[in-house]
Amino acid sequence: MALNNEIPTFDDIEAAALRMAGQLVATPCLPSHTLSRICGCSIYLKFENHQFTASFKERGALNKLLGLLPRERVAGVVAMSAGNHAQGVAYHSARLGIRSMIVMPVGTPLTKIARTTDHGARVVVTGANLVEAYAVAENHSQNFGYTMIHPYDDGEVIAGQGTLGLEIMRAVEGLDAIVVPVGGGGLVSGIAIAAKAINPRVKVIGVQSAVYPSMARAMAGEEGVLPDGVTIAEGIAVKVAGNLTRRIVADVVDEIIVVEEASIERAIALLQSVEKTVCEGAGAAGLAAVLQFRERFAGMRVAVPLTGGNIDARIFANVIMRDLIRSGSLMRIDVPISDQPGALATLATALAEEGANIVDVAHERMSLALNPKRAALDLVVELKDASHGEKVLSALRERGFDAEARAIG
Amino acid sequence: MALNNEIPTFDDIEAAALRMAGQLVATPCLPSHTLSRICGCSIYLKFENHQFTASFKERGALNKLLGLLPRERVAGVVAMSAGNHAQGVAYHSARLGIRSMIVMPVGTPLTKIARTTDHGARVVVTGANLVEAYAVAENHSQNFGYTMIHPYDDGEVIAGQGTLGLEIMRAVEGLDAIVVPVGGGGLVSGIAIAAKAINPRVKVIGVQSAVYPSMARAMAGEEGVLPDGVTIAEGIAVKVAGNLTRRIVADVVDEIIVVEEASIERAIALLQSVEKTVCEGAGAAGLAAVLQFRERFAGMRVAVPLTGGNIDARIFANVIMRDLIRSGSLMRIDVPISDQPGALATLATALAEEGANIVDVAHERMSLALNPKRAALDLVVELKDASHGEKVLSALRERGFDAEARAIG
Repeated sequence: MALNNEIPTFDDIEAAALRMAGQLVATPCLPSHTLSRICGCSIYLKFENHQFTASFKERGALNKLLGLLPRERVAGVVAMSAGNHAQGVAYHSARLGIRSMIVMPVGTPLTKIARTTDHGARVVVTGANLVEAYAVAENHSQNFGYTMIHPYDDGEVIAGQGTLGLEIMRAVEGLDAIVVPVGGGGLVSGIAIAAKAINPRVKVIGVQSAVYPSMARAMAGEEGVLPDGVTIAEGIAVKVAGNLTRRIVADVVDEIIVVEEASIERAIALLQSVEKTVCEGAGAAGLAAVLQFRERFAGMRVAVPLTGGNIDARIFANVIMRDLIRSGSLMRIDVPISDQPGALATLATALAEEGANIVDVAHERMSLALNPKRAALDLVVELKDASHGEKVLSALRERGFDAEARAIG
Repeated sequence: MALNNEIPTFDDIEAAALRMAGQLVATPCLPSHTLSRICGCSIYLKFENHQFTASFKERGALNKLLGLLPRERVAGVVAMSAGNHAQGVAYHSARLGIRSMIVMPVGTPLTKIARTTDHGARVVVTGANLVEAYAVAENHSQNFGYTMIHPYDDGEVIAGQGTLGLEIMRAVEGLDAIVVPVGGGGLVSGIAIAAKAINPRVKVIGVQSAVYPSMARAMAGEEGVLPDGVTIAEGIAVKVAGNLTRRIVADVVDEIIVVEEASIERAIALLQSVEKTVCEGAGAAGLAAVLQFRERFAGMRVAVPLTGGNIDARIFANVIMRDLIRSGSLMRIDVPISDQPGALATLATALAEEGANIVDVAHERMSLALNPKRAALDLVVELKDASHGEKVLSALRERGFDAEARAIG
């Protein structure tokens, strides 16, 4: 019931692949012509968001479960997670007839709890934060003999995640690099061990969000726990790097790079529009890195695992809309207008003549920045293409409106 | 250069599959456990939105192109379409070194034109509507020797689409029904010919939007051209059924059923949240039919081709948000409040105590329905689950607010 603190070998990963065979979705690994054109390199996508619970976490959880001794199977397992790890443990435990208990901190959204209980786990909501919830899980493990399934700091979990690296290496010939999202570091560790054993020249590059650069900091020798932050990539929002994983990363991962939130949003939106696939923020972080650091991947053959697809629907819709503004398909315009009959009509006519479609209008009279005789309009218009925005603004200015495009954060 | 007005045979479809082999994406056909549970039958999804141009239209276009005589190849092809057919013709023509011209009506969004020119076609924008644009294409075909590639009323195009039926029948054992979106009727015709030849007991059921039930009307003996309508399923918005296809449908398709727009929106949202896949309205119409007519598919093994993934990003984001309201994850609430200090604070506090997260607020003072001393709030709140909405409304009413949930159209 203790964690396995051994660094897994290539043989461990091959053994994991063998014993898990037929119990996971054989996710496709396919070239993307359009993303390759956009990124200036050859992109191969590994659609790990096609797993049943929509993330790679099933691999580590399943390998750990399959390694249990008969008495450990009978006793059951415990894990702390409000996310993809919880679903992976719950689903495969139930499938194998093993009881599972998942501890989630207070405040976890009911939808996440429901998704995990739906897979057959007992969910216990307790602890003010992840650290407290983890302590509860550990307590249960020690007092009641449940085996703890750690999300990353466990050699068998890392070996399970490493099978993703095996599959990528076997699917793509002549690969130059694998770009892997990093939270605790289990996936990048497993992939690096597998990939380097097959071809030591393959670069394995980890990616973290600029809001949670815990492994990047650990590699730079900076200690400590990161503060709370807000990121679209919740799945890799880890405040302190794993103990086992940081040793592996230091040893076999080439580099950890850090991406901006805007790059992650762009990647989510591109995967939606080009690949017709739904990725969560963490799942799109690999593509975000290639988009943000285009020049360092130029001309290379790059594999990008899409590690998860569990994104909140409202956030997904927001990201798509924000991307339309960032990419110039939609434009927010601030326009002060005189607070008189006809002002809006003149403006709307000017926009219609330019072929810009008004999507949203808000009318603001209260701003202290405005003369009391004036009102401000906050418009959202749909444009024909990227160059159309400047034309629309010029046309409004020619008609005497002091129109300004409003940027998105 | 004339259309092929022969009804294709099963042999024609098998021949099409043979000559197209290796030139299309081998799209997966997979069971969906979660959608099966939701629908009460066994659902098999054929991910035709994974084709390079994200729709099945490539099949018919490619089969027509591969059947051209050498002199026809040299002369080139012409098609009328602003949608998926245009992209399919453009992409495969360019790939085969055949010149293509695509006629689109005036007013076609620039993004659709760009997507087609990107694939290598010459796009001519002319004609006030589809009928006029089609006449231009036909003229070019007759005067300059371009072969016309009709989107559905052509035996070779239908044979190409029929290969989708072959693949489904070979992927799923013991299939009871295939539920196919119907615009002009090319796809359902080809699939029905293929499926019935392999197993005459398989039901082939066509689906149309209630806004454009042209084939359903044709089967009922009603003639005429449907008026303009607004539908989320643009890809099957066809005003009059094809001539060749209506004969085939009358002969071999079991039934055409008509679905509501709300069912199509629900299907798009479910495919996003459950399957992590992006479908356009027409592409989700098959699943919409199974959702709307649950009882008639009960216990059956049902194949649902996801025929296309090209949905406008803004519309996709809107559908996701509307579905959150319909499914009870978000609730719009209208609340009249007294226009005095503290009214909003009391309301917001009540919502916080109930665990409802305020997502959007609009403040309305101008409604004639209101007493001038009162204001109305239009709130959007995020709920924990479907039963939470009633609790939130009750809590507000207990505190004296006359709160009402606002339905979505």
